[in-house]
Amino acid sequence: MAKKYVYFFGGGKAEGKGGMKELLGGKGAGLAEMTNIGLPVPAGFTITTEVCDYFYKNNRKYPQGYSFEVKKNLARLEKLVGKKLGDPDDPLLVSVRSGAARSMPGMMETILNLGLNDRSVEGLAMKTSNRRFALDAYRRFIIMYGSTAMGIPRKKFDDEFDDIKERRTKVRLNIRKGTVLDTDVNEQELEELITRLKNVYKEHTKKDFPQDPLEQLSGSVDAVIGSWMAEKAVTYRRVEKITGLLGTAVNIVQMVFGNMGDTSGTGVCFTRDPNTGEDIFYGDLLMNAQGEDVVAGIRTPIHLSDLGKIMPNIYKQLTQVRSRLEKHYKDMQDIEFTIEEGKLYILQCRTGKRSPMAAFKIAVDLVKERLITKKEALLRISDKEIEGLFYPVIDPKIPLDELKHNLFATGIAAVPGAAAGSVVFTAKDAEAWTAQGKKVILVRKETSPEDVGGMHAAKGILTATGGKTSHAAVVARGWGKCCVVGCEDLAIDYDAKNVSVGNTIIKEGDEITINGSTGEVFKAPLNLIKPELPEAYNSLMTWADDVRTLKIRTNVDTPYDAENAIRLGAEGIGLCRTEHMFFDTDVRRMAIQRMIIAEDEETRKRALDELLPFQRKDFAGIFRAMDNKPVTIRLIDPPLHEFVPHTENDQKHLAQRLGIPFHQVKRRIDRLHEANPMLGHRGSRLCITYPEILDMQVRAIMEAASECKKKNIAVFPEIMLPLIIDAKELQILADRTRLVADSVMKEQGVKIKYLVGTMIEVPRAALLADQIAKVAEFFSFGTNDLTQMTLGMSRDDAGRFLPDYVDEKKAGVLKSDPFQSLDQDGVGLLIKMAIDKGRKTKKDLKVGICGEHGGDPASVEFCHLNGFNYVSCSPFRVPIARLSAAQAALKFGKKK
Amino acid sequence: MAKKYVYFFGGGKAEGKGGMKELLGGKGAGLAEMTNIGLPVPAGFTITTEVCDYFYKNNRKYPQGYSFEVKKNLARLEKLVGKKLGDPDDPLLVSVRSGAARSMPGMMETILNLGLNDRSVEGLAMKTSNRRFALDAYRRFIIMYGSTAMGIPRKKFDDEFDDIKERRTKVRLNIRKGTVLDTDVNEQELEELITRLKNVYKEHTKKDFPQDPLEQLSGSVDAVIGSWMAEKAVTYRRVEKITGLLGTAVNIVQMVFGNMGDTSGTGVCFTRDPNTGEDIFYGDLLMNAQGEDVVAGIRTPIHLSDLGKIMPNIYKQLTQVRSRLEKHYKDMQDIEFTIEEGKLYILQCRTGKRSPMAAFKIAVDLVKERLITKKEALLRISDKEIEGLFYPVIDPKIPLDELKHNLFATGIAAVPGAAAGSVVFTAKDAEAWTAQGKKVILVRKETSPEDVGGMHAAKGILTATGGKTSHAAVVARGWGKCCVVGCEDLAIDYDAKNVSVGNTIIKEGDEITINGSTGEVFKAPLNLIKPELPEAYNSLMTWADDVRTLKIRTNVDTPYDAENAIRLGAEGIGLCRTEHMFFDTDVRRMAIQRMIIAEDEETRKRALDELLPFQRKDFAGIFRAMDNKPVTIRLIDPPLHEFVPHTENDQKHLAQRLGIPFHQVKRRIDRLHEANPMLGHRGSRLCITYPEILDMQVRAIMEAASECKKKNIAVFPEIMLPLIIDAKELQILADRTRLVADSVMKEQGVKIKYLVGTMIEVPRAALLADQIAKVAEFFSFGTNDLTQMTLGMSRDDAGRFLPDYVDEKKAGVLKSDPFQSLDQDGVGLLIKMAIDKGRKTKKDLKVGICGEHGGDPASVEFCHLNGFNYVSCSPFRVPIARLSAAQAALKFGKKK
Repeated sequence: MAKKYVYFFGGGKAEGKGGMKELLGGKGAGLAEMTNIGLPVPAGFTITTEVCDYFYKNNRKYPQGYSFEVKKNLARLEKLVGKKLGDPDDPLLVSVRSGAARSMPGMMETILNLGLNDRSVEGLAMKTSNRRFALDAYRRFIIMYGSTAMGIPRKKFDDEFDDIKERRTKVRLNIRKGTVLDTDVNEQELEELITRLKNVYKEHTKKDFPQDPLEQLSGSVDAVIGSWMAEKAVTYRRVEKITGLLGTAVNIVQMVFGNMGDTSGTGVCFTRDPNTGEDIFYGDLLMNAQGEDVVAGIRTPIHLSDLGKIMPNIYKQLTQVRSRLEKHYKDMQDIEFTIEEGKLYILQCRTGKRSPMAAFKIAVDLVKERLITKKEALLRISDKEIEGLFYPVIDPKIPLDELKHNLFATGIAAVPGAAAGSVVFTAKDAEAWTAQGKKVILVRKETSPEDVGGMHAAKGILTATGGKTSHAAVVARGWGKCCVVGCEDLAIDYDAKNVSVGNTIIKEGDEITINGSTGEVFKAPLNLIKPELPEAYNSLMTWADDVRTLKIRTNVDTPYDAENAIRLGAEGIGLCRTEHMFFDTDVRRMAIQRMIIAEDEETRKRALDELLPFQRKDFAGIFRAMDNKPVTIRLIDPPLHEFVPHTENDQKHLAQRLGIPFHQVKRRIDRLHEANPMLGHRGSRLCITYPEILDMQVRAIMEAASECKKKNIAVFPEIMLPLIIDAKELQILADRTRLVADSVMKEQGVKIKYLVGTMIEVPRAALLADQIAKVAEFFSFGTNDLTQMTLGMSRDDAGRFLPDYVDEKKAGVLKSDPFQSLDQDGVGLLIKMAIDKGRKTKKDLKVGICGEHGGDPASVEFCHLNGFNYVSCSPFRVPIARLSAAQAALKFGKKK
Repeated sequence: MAKKYVYFFGGGKAEGKGGMKELLGGKGAGLAEMTNIGLPVPAGFTITTEVCDYFYKNNRKYPQGYSFEVKKNLARLEKLVGKKLGDPDDPLLVSVRSGAARSMPGMMETILNLGLNDRSVEGLAMKTSNRRFALDAYRRFIIMYGSTAMGIPRKKFDDEFDDIKERRTKVRLNIRKGTVLDTDVNEQELEELITRLKNVYKEHTKKDFPQDPLEQLSGSVDAVIGSWMAEKAVTYRRVEKITGLLGTAVNIVQMVFGNMGDTSGTGVCFTRDPNTGEDIFYGDLLMNAQGEDVVAGIRTPIHLSDLGKIMPNIYKQLTQVRSRLEKHYKDMQDIEFTIEEGKLYILQCRTGKRSPMAAFKIAVDLVKERLITKKEALLRISDKEIEGLFYPVIDPKIPLDELKHNLFATGIAAVPGAAAGSVVFTAKDAEAWTAQGKKVILVRKETSPEDVGGMHAAKGILTATGGKTSHAAVVARGWGKCCVVGCEDLAIDYDAKNVSVGNTIIKEGDEITINGSTGEVFKAPLNLIKPELPEAYNSLMTWADDVRTLKIRTNVDTPYDAENAIRLGAEGIGLCRTEHMFFDTDVRRMAIQRMIIAEDEETRKRALDELLPFQRKDFAGIFRAMDNKPVTIRLIDPPLHEFVPHTENDQKHLAQRLGIPFHQVKRRIDRLHEANPMLGHRGSRLCITYPEILDMQVRAIMEAASECKKKNIAVFPEIMLPLIIDAKELQILADRTRLVADSVMKEQGVKIKYLVGTMIEVPRAALLADQIAKVAEFFSFGTNDLTQMTLGMSRDDAGRFLPDYVDEKKAGVLKSDPFQSLDQDGVGLLIKMAIDKGRKTKKDLKVGICGEHGGDPASVEFCHLNGFNYVSCSPFRVPIARLSAAQAALKFGKKK
């Protein structure tokens, strides 16, 4: 049987259904599903994603038979609706919209009012008795078709429209520039506009605007499919890590009109509040407008509850739809609807984007409402949502006066949280400034899909126009990124790079603060603090902890951070770096520097003796904070040159303080210089050369442990040797470690259970894991270095070429940045091999990960699947790791 | 049955035999074998190497029953010889000598004349009617026992002896200082000396010198076994890569005396000339001396042929021994003998060390004499011996006048070849100066085992004393290192750091030239050239080529080197680095620098266009030299910052020449700086970022190939992409390579068979070799980088810690320097995996190696065993690779 490329829906029945997202896209599957459950959906048909896939795999050709299917379904639609496309008396109009299996808001093209031409526009005018409406529909169609299908710059069309509106302004001087609304333009002006738009079209395409509706249709479908590979769509997929889709489906749907007068309107609503998750009906609409007006945020809409006052019946019908959809989809839905002359149509429904706060509340509430299980609730939460919960808020201790004094403007609170930073006016600047380590707030009149990169980079987003469902709001919400929209008082001057409210001017680079929970904008950088966690968070994390089998540890170096990590749910320390402690005070820094400058063992040992009490104190603090939990302490890792000054002045100063000739200090430091420090004299290599460093550190650890044990604190030290490449090397150092540890315990008269293990962070160690496991009591994968060495890629230098390697438009060699998400194909293979080999030697070998991947959900899933005992990550990623571990357990079952 | 720890030999029969080297050591097995074949060997017994092994594995304790066995065998010896140890009337004296399974000349301890004490010395005096001899034997024993077994500094004893000799000098003023010989000292003086030596002994040990022969014996055995782990022995084993030995055996043998007057003597001889390999009897001896006098080179000996005149019967007997031994052992032998009052004793025989030249001649001659097969001959040649053949000689074009004018002194030609360099006077300096890249000649009065490191480092060795069998000569010969010994005219002043002959003084750092083939020393750095290869070399290499299955290619970058490599037997190029060509002339350097400084593609392309004709010309030259052989060309590899100047002055100069503002040049160069350039923006990553570089290089290759093809030169270009980490990355670049290559062939109207392959030099590429093999037409393992990344060890920086990792006395983690000999345990494992995976995808995938390991024998063997098609190495190592490949094929059979 030939492949079916087109699926029809309408008249209460659909060929597709909700489960066919991959094939019909989210929108197409939704329309089919909604049709099937009896909602008032306009009729139409969906061209499957397989057509798009075929198109790109076959040199931009369509599959055989596809075109015939489209015509057959168009005929069926015409028959059902009782109108014909392009009919000069009573034309059928359709929309052509994209829709992939995953939502990509605003990323791909839409064409409305297709079927209009110079003759049918008059038929529509007659039929609706509203020539202004018909002409307006036609001008919209010409603009959309011209810019989308033919690639004519949108501005060319807008300029013509603005010119006509401008003329009005000149005539009626009392009207402020830019305040003439589209709806104010009259029939004559529209007629003139249409002529001018068609001229623009001809100028660019060297052809007349197409009058044949079938030509219009195929051009529009081409445009939608072409938009799948447009740069902005590709960027969006990369940022959102959307992969594995066939392509976009194309939905051709009977047009209904929200702009047919005062009993018409169009809107977007959510079945619950997408910001708080509260069970209230939430949304807004524009009366006498088409959908694109809402999404683009060009006009500021009215609130949904106002609809109850204007059209109570429609409002009631809409609330019934709301409840039916939530029961059906068992999740909060985002609904697009249009009211055409008092009749409600549901155009689209999909799972609604929500703020992190809302995500938790909705998930937990739905469990309470018995609509979903705890498992389903857990699987619905993403790492970004957890992260979002921890976004800062403005310090409530700031006096009201101060706030008031600094208030600059107020807009619509689109995504909660607060952000402070320097103002930039373009997405490019947002990316560039952020790359330089600055915090920025992106301020735009409105955002568009081209801005996604800069929006992602910015700490917060502020727009002058648009509502809660505008592009800026929807995109920012997905990231849990603070966002204020529709701040209409802002006068933004892109050329002068400033924004003003009245006489107050804020220039590029000035610092502001925005509050996404209230919509307030402050003309100063205010102090931000961490928010209270919602109750739903605690419930959900408890469920997660019940489910997961992976332990979650943390990477911390101080007692303070250790306590914080415990609060966030850490079950131990997977990586305590001892070297940071050397910098804590001047006395310590001097001692470590004296140790390094030492040219003989005696001097080195004396300097180490000075450091011992400091390290002991730090370790004791950490053991205390981690009472009853394991603490993995890594011995010194970085090359020694990281501890000493490199300018001549600083070296002279150091020489003076150490009472050593300058030339000696300089000579020693010069000798420490390395061509490739990453692969140099560091890690356990330092302890092979200077075993006295190991002696001091192990002594400090075990003395601290003894001290704590005597105070009834349960200590489980795990001493970890970094950068090991060979079993014999580990044996030498492990023997020495045990010698020191055992002698400290003897001195202290205390017995402590401690482990000696190794980081697996050099490929050779992974390859020889069977031999290394004979000596090591645990493995901890140092995936940062392991990634650098396995890929031959210095993280410090990769900035120059890694973007090309990750960018699917360029080389696209790697799925994602291997320093953020574990390179499972390459490094992962090595890790699996190492675990297999290690456990062949030592069946119960404890295995963990302590690279930064420990807090990345995909990497946590990898760890779950490959028999890790724990992952260890920064404290603020501990909750993410807890959830990810639970999700992995739910998806794949418990692993041994 | 209990283990047998002691093996007896004597009276024409031995318990051991020649094949028991591992157990009895080379010397012990030799003594047993010689006894069995009826040679006049003194009787004795051997303590096995298992005792030494047990000793070090059991906390320095001897095995049970061992001591009883020694006593039993001592009794048997006493019975056979008819004398008793320590007998005051007619004492048995024995020697105690070390002897491991592999020869370590001078590395371990020997004690002679054991059994003498205050009473037995008089018995010996009476029995031999030579009290002076007996006293001399006793003083030797005290010195050896005291310094060796008790660790008393030898100098303390020597000072006493010197003091007595000095007194003589003062008395007889006509005698030059230092010219009083040991043999000049009389009985009274010896008696006094013995008393003084015993005082020295007591002062240090707080005990009297032991009078009990059994105590002397156990002390001496302890000393010999202790010497196995002495630093010099451990160093020697490391340098010589001797591993896997159990330990040393100990030989206790009846003493015979070469110093019993003018019918006594002792000597060392070789069954063929160890320098040329000629079939002549070669050696020297000292009359009225003990063996240690010969080996230490303290006195200059007489030539063996002189013995024929002095004692014709003994000389005849010795020539019979010579011929019997060569027939028996089928190789040139090194024989130690002693004549005791007209009676010949053979003390030791072993395979003789020989010069590289001699090694070839002897091996080929023995084949001609049908004593050995071609296979045996091939297996007897080592890589060092091939290397030695290529050592330089003094340019024969230098006029005789000039040579004469520069002649400084003449000594004994110990190891042929010539060397020029700066004079240093200590082994430590030799190592230090060499590490700084200087060429040095080590000048010593005599060398000792402590000097081995410095001897290895030096280009040549010159000593004032010693003969052809002195320590310096034997050790240098093993390495094929130019050596002149016994240059008695030299007056060396270690304190002033100079050496003089008459009024001519050469100071430390002055350059000299030594000729190891003539013994001449020149006071100037003379021009050295490469020697003629001997006929035997050609025969042997032809046999090797018949046998081996591995192809041997070479790493060269210029037509000149390519021609040279062909002469040395290369069968193609395995690695042609294209970047070196950029530096060849100023025009090229400017073009590459302009390319790098370029900030846009256009400028970059223009600069590349300038480079194209140069590269094309180079490639054409290489193709011509390699007519009919494959040529693997690697595209640009090093990071761009290697091509540009880094000082401000040079950058300014460059800016001026390029006509570009300095700040722009500086900014661009600054941006190229990398933290870890090894892991940075280099290799194929450059072509991902700047594909125009690939375009130029591929075009240059294919245009050159077309040009050659048109001239009927058979070209087989293999284009190689470096630093690949992923199949997709390779696919992108391979596609582009083929696109350019195919379009050049079309332009040129020529059809050329070319391959596109990759280096496997990043661990990830090895791990994903199955995927990469889908794209690559060949793999070439870049083991330099693969080693750096797999071990996480930068070759540039490893100097700081790698010595500890290779030093078995310290960490001893690695068997050898992984940058010289492939780390088979780690990197080798990865390579095997990559080949398996690669060949699973592509059964006939061509696999080669192009790191520096390609010329290392152990690594070549690895390649043979693991199915490589070829190895590629520097031209001068091509002959070594050819031989090693043959040896591997002989040892392990042909591999698929």
